[in-house]
Amino acid sequence: MRFTSQTSSDGVTEQLFTLGEIPGVLWTPEDALGTRPLILMGHGGGQHKKAPGILARARLFVAEAGFAVAAIDAPNHGERPKDEELDRLATENRARMAAGEDTAALVAGLHALVAGQTVAEWQAVLTAVQRLDHVGDGPVGYWGMSMGCGLGAPFVAAEPRVRAAVLGLQGSPELAETAARITVPVRFLVQWDDERVPRAQSLAVFDAFASAEKTLHANPGKHGDLPRFETDSSLRFFARHLS
Amino acid sequence: MRFTSQTSSDGVTEQLFTLGEIPGVLWTPEDALGTRPLILMGHGGGQHKKAPGILARARLFVAEAGFAVAAIDAPNHGERPKDEELDRLATENRARMAAGEDTAALVAGLHALVAGQTVAEWQAVLTAVQRLDHVGDGPVGYWGMSMGCGLGAPFVAAEPRVRAAVLGLQGSPELAETAARITVPVRFLVQWDDERVPRAQSLAVFDAFASAEKTLHANPGKHGDLPRFETDSSLRFFARHLS
Repeated sequence: MRFTSQTSSDGVTEQLFTLGEIPGVLWTPEDALGTRPLILMGHGGGQHKKAPGILARARLFVAEAGFAVAAIDAPNHGERPKDEELDRLATENRARMAAGEDTAALVAGLHALVAGQTVAEWQAVLTAVQRLDHVGDGPVGYWGMSMGCGLGAPFVAAEPRVRAAVLGLQGSPELAETAARITVPVRFLVQWDDERVPRAQSLAVFDAFASAEKTLHANPGKHGDLPRFETDSSLRFFARHLS
Repeated sequence: MRFTSQTSSDGVTEQLFTLGEIPGVLWTPEDALGTRPLILMGHGGGQHKKAPGILARARLFVAEAGFAVAAIDAPNHGERPKDEELDRLATENRARMAAGEDTAALVAGLHALVAGQTVAEWQAVLTAVQRLDHVGDGPVGYWGMSMGCGLGAPFVAAEPRVRAAVLGLQGSPELAETAARITVPVRFLVQWDDERVPRAQSLAVFDAFASAEKTLHANPGKHGDLPRFETDSSLRFFARHLS
């Protein structure tokens, strides 16, 4: 793990790093000492580790709860090199969606392919970040919407160090199968008028989680309209389970 | 409005009152002075104004947020005299449910009948309670599950002084019609495995609310299994809209 920059503002320290080929960012309270809960945040499709939503949420989690938050660029996103194969598949998917094929199924297929790589990446990042003195091996949560859910759910299902997850804005039979292997407390966010994810598929994913504690939060609006108060609510969910 | 008793414990004052024929209870912070948000709480069927759930929730809202909370006995409940007609209808409903008739429709019919009386009762109680110096005419919220939703939704729809509502554990086409007349922010609580309310009817009610801000919270479990953390979440919802 190699740190490439460090800045602090408003009580939050931001450290950019690379771990092998993975570019990442870690936010912690300024002058943090000792072990704390860690939230891993997976960004959405076409976004990156410092997309505005990720950045605002991470800074809030650090400032309000003293958590550490880490985000990485997904393959073919952010600072990572273009992946010809993924690029070709994404382009092909867009054409097939335009031609009327089932969007959710195409997206799920792509996510399943990429998750084969990203589960191991998240595991390596988790191990490396928890070795840092100002993070330590405290309880771990995962937050990811849309592609961050499609790639994150397989990670949550596979990784016993993750103790709670906020997922959402994604639905497919494949995701429901993954959800059935998740047993930690889950908050699942649905946009009631999501133009990309059929409502019934979202509800089926919620139904499938094997978690004893799972809560569905549905709000009106489209895929990109997740209300601001769900961020505060996610923080309280993590605080309840990880603090 | 006539007060019949006053006690205080753990910083919360409880005053029993009657307003005409309506027995009620008001909880406020001990030594409260001046205007504050007021939450009206409607109890479930077979319960009463001081049922354990109402009492615990009211005391939490007062102690944590400084709100005033009022609850009244619904007709044919608590300290109110037995209503022969309602009693006969409830008994008849139980027999018809046992015979396989649609439970939701029978319950909705009964609630519609009783709401004709209780909307005016809640309005009178609201007016009387807001005349008290230690409550005043601050913003008003309504909280009611099950029968407290069936009777409360028509009140919220009819009463412009109510600015936010937490409703749930009820679903029927009649309730959906009422929901379509509600425009204030709504939190709607659903038990995913509710043995009394069909899931599709609950979702249809959520769909019907005309509110720009409405959030569905669904949790696993039966009608009586609403998780404790939804009480904290309801308090934050009211604090966001009424404080």
